[in-house]
Amino acid sequence: MIEKRFVMAFVVFWASNLMLTLFSVLITASVSPAAAGSGIPEVKAYLNGVDAPGIFSLKTLFVKLFLKSRCLYEPSSNCWNVMIIGSISAVSSSLIVGKAGPMVHTGACVASLLGQGRSKKYGWTWSWLQFLKNDRDRRDLIACGSAAGIAAAFRAPVGGLLFALEEMASWWRSALLWRAFFTTAIVLMILGALIEFCESGKCGPFGKGGLIMYNVTSTDISYHLWDVPPVLLLGVLGGLFGSLYNFLLDKVLRVYNVINRKCSGYKILLACSISIFTSCLLFGLPWLASCLPCPADAEEPCPTIGQSGSYKQFQCPPGHYNDLASLIFNTNDDAIRNLFSKGTNDEFQYSSILIFFGICFFLGIFSYGIVAPTGLFVPVIVTGASYGRFIGMLVGSHSTLNRGLFAVLGAASFLGGTMRTTVSACVILLELTNNLLLLPLMMLVLLVSKTVADAFDSNIYDLIMKAKGFPFLEAHAKPFMRQLTVGDVVKGPLQLFHGIEKVGNVVHVLRTTIHNGFPVIDEPPVSGSPVLYGLILRAHLIELLKKKAFLSSPEPTGIDVSEQFSVVDFAKKGSGNANKIQDIVVTEEEENMFLDLHPFTNASPYTVVETMSLAKALILFRQVGLRHLLVIPKIKRRSPVVGILTRHDFMPEDMISLHPAWTRSRWKRWRLTSPRWLNPF
Amino acid sequence: MIEKRFVMAFVVFWASNLMLTLFSVLITASVSPAAAGSGIPEVKAYLNGVDAPGIFSLKTLFVKLFLKSRCLYEPSSNCWNVMIIGSISAVSSSLIVGKAGPMVHTGACVASLLGQGRSKKYGWTWSWLQFLKNDRDRRDLIACGSAAGIAAAFRAPVGGLLFALEEMASWWRSALLWRAFFTTAIVLMILGALIEFCESGKCGPFGKGGLIMYNVTSTDISYHLWDVPPVLLLGVLGGLFGSLYNFLLDKVLRVYNVINRKCSGYKILLACSISIFTSCLLFGLPWLASCLPCPADAEEPCPTIGQSGSYKQFQCPPGHYNDLASLIFNTNDDAIRNLFSKGTNDEFQYSSILIFFGICFFLGIFSYGIVAPTGLFVPVIVTGASYGRFIGMLVGSHSTLNRGLFAVLGAASFLGGTMRTTVSACVILLELTNNLLLLPLMMLVLLVSKTVADAFDSNIYDLIMKAKGFPFLEAHAKPFMRQLTVGDVVKGPLQLFHGIEKVGNVVHVLRTTIHNGFPVIDEPPVSGSPVLYGLILRAHLIELLKKKAFLSSPEPTGIDVSEQFSVVDFAKKGSGNANKIQDIVVTEEEENMFLDLHPFTNASPYTVVETMSLAKALILFRQVGLRHLLVIPKIKRRSPVVGILTRHDFMPEDMISLHPAWTRSRWKRWRLTSPRWLNPF
Repeated sequence: MIEKRFVMAFVVFWASNLMLTLFSVLITASVSPAAAGSGIPEVKAYLNGVDAPGIFSLKTLFVKLFLKSRCLYEPSSNCWNVMIIGSISAVSSSLIVGKAGPMVHTGACVASLLGQGRSKKYGWTWSWLQFLKNDRDRRDLIACGSAAGIAAAFRAPVGGLLFALEEMASWWRSALLWRAFFTTAIVLMILGALIEFCESGKCGPFGKGGLIMYNVTSTDISYHLWDVPPVLLLGVLGGLFGSLYNFLLDKVLRVYNVINRKCSGYKILLACSISIFTSCLLFGLPWLASCLPCPADAEEPCPTIGQSGSYKQFQCPPGHYNDLASLIFNTNDDAIRNLFSKGTNDEFQYSSILIFFGICFFLGIFSYGIVAPTGLFVPVIVTGASYGRFIGMLVGSHSTLNRGLFAVLGAASFLGGTMRTTVSACVILLELTNNLLLLPLMMLVLLVSKTVADAFDSNIYDLIMKAKGFPFLEAHAKPFMRQLTVGDVVKGPLQLFHGIEKVGNVVHVLRTTIHNGFPVIDEPPVSGSPVLYGLILRAHLIELLKKKAFLSSPEPTGIDVSEQFSVVDFAKKGSGNANKIQDIVVTEEEENMFLDLHPFTNASPYTVVETMSLAKALILFRQVGLRHLLVIPKIKRRSPVVGILTRHDFMPEDMISLHPAWTRSRWKRWRLTSPRWLNPF
Repeated sequence: MIEKRFVMAFVVFWASNLMLTLFSVLITASVSPAAAGSGIPEVKAYLNGVDAPGIFSLKTLFVKLFLKSRCLYEPSSNCWNVMIIGSISAVSSSLIVGKAGPMVHTGACVASLLGQGRSKKYGWTWSWLQFLKNDRDRRDLIACGSAAGIAAAFRAPVGGLLFALEEMASWWRSALLWRAFFTTAIVLMILGALIEFCESGKCGPFGKGGLIMYNVTSTDISYHLWDVPPVLLLGVLGGLFGSLYNFLLDKVLRVYNVINRKCSGYKILLACSISIFTSCLLFGLPWLASCLPCPADAEEPCPTIGQSGSYKQFQCPPGHYNDLASLIFNTNDDAIRNLFSKGTNDEFQYSSILIFFGICFFLGIFSYGIVAPTGLFVPVIVTGASYGRFIGMLVGSHSTLNRGLFAVLGAASFLGGTMRTTVSACVILLELTNNLLLLPLMMLVLLVSKTVADAFDSNIYDLIMKAKGFPFLEAHAKPFMRQLTVGDVVKGPLQLFHGIEKVGNVVHVLRTTIHNGFPVIDEPPVSGSPVLYGLILRAHLIELLKKKAFLSSPEPTGIDVSEQFSVVDFAKKGSGNANKIQDIVVTEEEENMFLDLHPFTNASPYTVVETMSLAKALILFRQVGLRHLLVIPKIKRRSPVVGILTRHDFMPEDMISLHPAWTRSRWKRWRLTSPRWLNPF
């Protein structure tokens, strides 16, 4: 007969979890649906150049979260906190979700907002920020913001910086390294000041703990050759579990996406059922664990009742504790700290650790996809730590390493297996645990787990990006691209403008296409033979239409229309802030006037000949960070330009849809989807 | 009256130092003069693409050191050890020189050699290595080799990897990160195994000390806001001293280069005088220091006589020690360890530390330029540690930081001031000292010192590269390049080949020019109008001449000459291994035959129009890593190609020599040499 107090406890647990989840989902779904999930894939895609309207949800986020509510200049607005509040309530609702991803997203949003630095409402602009209004600087700012996010989440400045470089940024520059270093140094100093402030006890229950989150320092670590086999085993396990985790998460996310795309009710229903399921599981499973007598030399009161601690009594008689409940009814941070600690050598039973591993593994997968700011880092670390601890317990005294260190190595192996980062995972874990002597084993584990996992599938963020349909541009061309030429993938019909173009034509073309760049050519009346003059952007054309810099006749007049414009007019607008052709009104009279595009055209765009291999064009496109690449004919033809390549033309999926015959040949299909193990590096 | 034993000691000290220096200089000057100096600038230039024959001394090194003596397959040869032996004797000769630079150079050489993987003598090749015989993979291998060098020198795998990425590599790729991580992990494991082997005492006096070279771990570090001003002062000092160090080193090197370019005698004379001067200074200055009584609680015997230790008696009475002598008559590593240690709070006097700082600062500058493998890292660390310690002593008990930690921060500030690395310096120092709690202050110091120093001059390796005349391609265009077009810098006359070219012409052009790439055009008999067919490399033309793949008539025959060749024939040869046109013998009859260049031409080279701004062309050239960039006319002319750009065309110095008028205008001159502080990032 279960006592009434257990029922009461379950009801409170269940209800508060549900409330918190519901709150988090509601605030996310109503204010900024794009804040759902980790945010790392979105930021990574943005840094790769995915910025097309309607595709990139970060844009939606900025619109919904920041621009519409114009929070920068309204201190009373709570929008800064939406993502943070959502993340806090999601984490506190006992869901197995993390906080690092949302913090990266928040960092990126704040960086983007700072780069914007203007308020439409008050008509005020930070004028010195106009120099940051271009793709490259905005990208750098956001990369620094994401480094700051990880740095703040784990108090790991170098790790955060390396994560931004290894996992997030598509273009590395020395300047970026230095800027990110600056950013994370500032983060660390502010963190340090806050920690110092809170140490004096002014922060209530918050702010305990120093700079190192899970300290496992010990000066007497030593290990020998016979410690290597279990560590290798951990690496292999990490690779296997990691790739399985990625595989399952991808499948679950695809199902969830179908549900979430329906009306809001479904999103909420999904989140509620996950929350209820989680509550039942978390409350029910500790009953399976047998009670352990309190150790005589426990540093904390055992069992701990009415306060946080690592010996929970749960259903046990006095003087006993339930080890599984101690892991579950704790913050994830405390659970990790307990698993990493060497002082808890005999605190856990085999069965409890195994059950805890199962909970973290599967609930982590099922919780991630709900419409709330949920991260992956902490669930991955806690899952890795639990099976690492299990292996450590199996090895027991056969190894000179204690069980806490096995848990650290387990966390490293699972990080390597899911996120496939090496240097940054290594440095983040070192900064979390402050134990440099463990470095050789950690590097070994990461190498093994990444190599094993890479044989099966790709990194978790890439999978999520693929599931979301971002046109992410890989650094390496697929092998089959070497056999294709640029001419093979260029699509028609091509929209051209002449150097001096009728306004009506411009408006018509802008209204009927969604292209963002147009070639400008000069034809015989103006030049001797048709010549490619350059490339003009949609945004600049709209600016011209908006300012109505029209000519009455197509003959060049002495008037320099470009004097009507300043550099600021052509600065890149913030996402969602761009002018739209629908907002431009042109009278019939104006439609018959002319625009001289020459002063506003990029007169030396990058070009490639149509016979260039696609792989080579991709190198140019990707390395220089282009959005449009003009294709010119090898041998002179009527038109001096064959077509225009954009990011989508380099997507393997798009190529297959363009040439469906390719998929019929099994050999080509195999090359299109060449297995990962052919390219282990 | 100086006792006879001091005279004897001085003679022994002086003579052994001279012998060791002489040995190091002789072995370097005779076997491989290119091994002189740190080697880091050479490797950095190679990784930037500086690979032209005769310019790059690393090539000379490979030739002299490895290829001529064919050491890979002659285990008895001592050439592997030349650089290491030279470096060991230079370091042991009491010169203030380091070992990290030569180790980076050695790592790069070994990597290059592994990539070569063939022996001409035995006619044997590692055939699977043929896939590495291209610029990119060779560059990656060498970047990993240099990471391994730093990792081995400081037992700092992550720091080494970051140093290779931040300071050495010009092109970053995620794959490179992962490969370098793999390399340094292996380095660390081998180091760990050796350390474990030596701990059992089997290595004699060697191999003491664990993985952490200068351990300053303490769990009770705490610091407060009032510790920040002295730390900021350290940063500013580091910046000032660092830029002064760079300035003086640059001047001294330019003088030395004049001397070293003369016959061998001068080199040896220079090195000997530096050695004698160093010996006199090191032996003479400790006489200025007053004797200190031995501390009662010393952990080591005090004074230590007849063994290594940190209390040298020198001229002092029994029970006393000479603190300056203790710093000087020790290895640099032990001096650094003493300076970093917190257990030595009262061991040193103000005057001794100041004198030691002066010695390290100036002798470091004067010793670097001798013809021996000499590094900069250790001198920089020891110099920084000495003034850091001095500041720490001045601050004394006003700070919660102990004097050892000030020395660590001083080393960080001087590293930031001379090398201008941030992340890697930070991680290397953390791995050297194993103290993560110092991270916030270290980041602060590095930021300040780098910012201050950048206002005066550039990073030390860049200065050395400039002094050596390497055409290093910066990532950023100088501002004046935006005003120039590609057409402004293209030089004539242009050497062209036709698609089907007379053998005699090819031989003549190859013999009379030093160009490495030639445009190939097709003219009316072959095509309708002159068309740019592509670009052919000198190496490939020589290969064609060597195989005598000639046609008897200019008309296309049905024979496919390309069948005579395999991919291996066109693999990039190792430096110094390339075929030379002088070795090709062509009979008069053959000179009247023809070569069909079409199958061997790169038919889709990257091109730019002549009106493109130079800055934009530089982005393409640098980001894609080109060696030749074809310039095509904007408007059709007789020739379909205007010229060819190489790395030298982007060098600001070359542009000035091309357009001497620019330097007459003060404004332009200012822009050409725009001060560093305009671009602090």
